[in-house]
Amino acid sequence: MRMGEGVEWGLHCCVTLGWLDEAAPVPIRRLAAWFDLPQEYLKKRLQPLTRAGILTSSPGVRGGWSLARPPGEISVMEVVTALEGPLEAFRCTEIRQRGIGGRDAGREFDGPCGISSMMRRAELAWRRELAGSTIADLMEHAPESAARTRRNYSRLTD
Amino acid sequence: MRMGEGVEWGLHCCVTLGWLDEAAPVPIRRLAAWFDLPQEYLKKRLQPLTRAGILTSSPGVRGGWSLARPPGEISVMEVVTALEGPLEAFRCTEIRQRGIGGRDAGREFDGPCGISSMMRRAELAWRRELAGSTIADLMEHAPESAARTRRNYSRLTD
Repeated sequence: MRMGEGVEWGLHCCVTLGWLDEAAPVPIRRLAAWFDLPQEYLKKRLQPLTRAGILTSSPGVRGGWSLARPPGEISVMEVVTALEGPLEAFRCTEIRQRGIGGRDAGREFDGPCGISSMMRRAELAWRRELAGSTIADLMEHAPESAARTRRNYSRLTD
Repeated sequence: MRMGEGVEWGLHCCVTLGWLDEAAPVPIRRLAAWFDLPQEYLKKRLQPLTRAGILTSSPGVRGGWSLARPPGEISVMEVVTALEGPLEAFRCTEIRQRGIGGRDAGREFDGPCGISSMMRRAELAWRRELAGSTIADLMEHAPESAARTRRNYSRLTD
C-alpha cells in the first residue's frame, strides 16, 4: 500500500506557503525554483489543492499561490484526501458471499463483514490522526525551518 | 491510496481455514471452489502467506492448506504485511532539503522532518489496530458464519 508522492509535495507546499504568508502570493516560478521542480509539474501537483479550496492562485505578474484559508483551518486529512481521493484503502468486495462458502447464509449477511469492519476501524484510527493535525501544527513544529524559509525567500531577486 | 485485493482474499482464507481446523488440510480445489476462484489464481494469492509462515500447504491426495499456527497467534498486521510488503504508505524523500528552500540549513535537518513524523504517527495508529487483532478475533466475531462454513464444508463430496 503506497501513497502517491503528491502528498509529500502538497504538504510541503502548504507549509511553505503558510510560512511565507506575508510575502504571498508566491509566483509559480519561485515556488518551482524553491523545490527545484519544473513549473508545469508543480502546477499539476497543486491543482487538486486549488479545487479543494486549500490553495488559491491569482493570475498576472503580481499573481501566484497562497493558502486559501488560515493554516489552522486546513487539516492534514483534507490535504491527503484532496490528493489521494476520498476512498478507503481497504475495499470490501463481499468475498464472504461468493461460491460454495456463501450458500444458505439466510440473513447472516445483513450486517457488515467482520473483516471489513476491522479494516475500517484501523483506517479510522489513521484518519483521526490526520484530521487532528493542521498545517499550522506542522508550521509550528519547525520554527527554525520557518525562519530559514523566510530568510531564503527574502533574498530572492527574480 | 489503495490496498491490493489480495488482503481481502488472504484474510478470508485465513479465517475460513481457522473455522475448518478440524477438517484441515483443505485441498486447493475445495478452497478455490469455496470462493469460486481459479485454483492457480488462489495459489498465487496465498503463496506470500506460506512464505510468511502463516499458512502451510502439504502435497498429495490428502494434502492441502491449513493455518501454520493457532489463529490467536496470527495478527491481522502480519497478514497485511505479508501481502502488501513491510514498507510504510508514506515515503519521505526529504523534500525540505531540495532547491533554494533547503539552502543554509545548518544542522536543522539532523532530526526527522515534521511532516514525515506526523504521517508516521498516523500510520502507527493504523498498524496498532491491525496488530491488536488476530485471526481468532475475526473468527469469534462471526459465530453464525463459522457454523455455516463447517456445515457447508461437511456437505462437500468431491
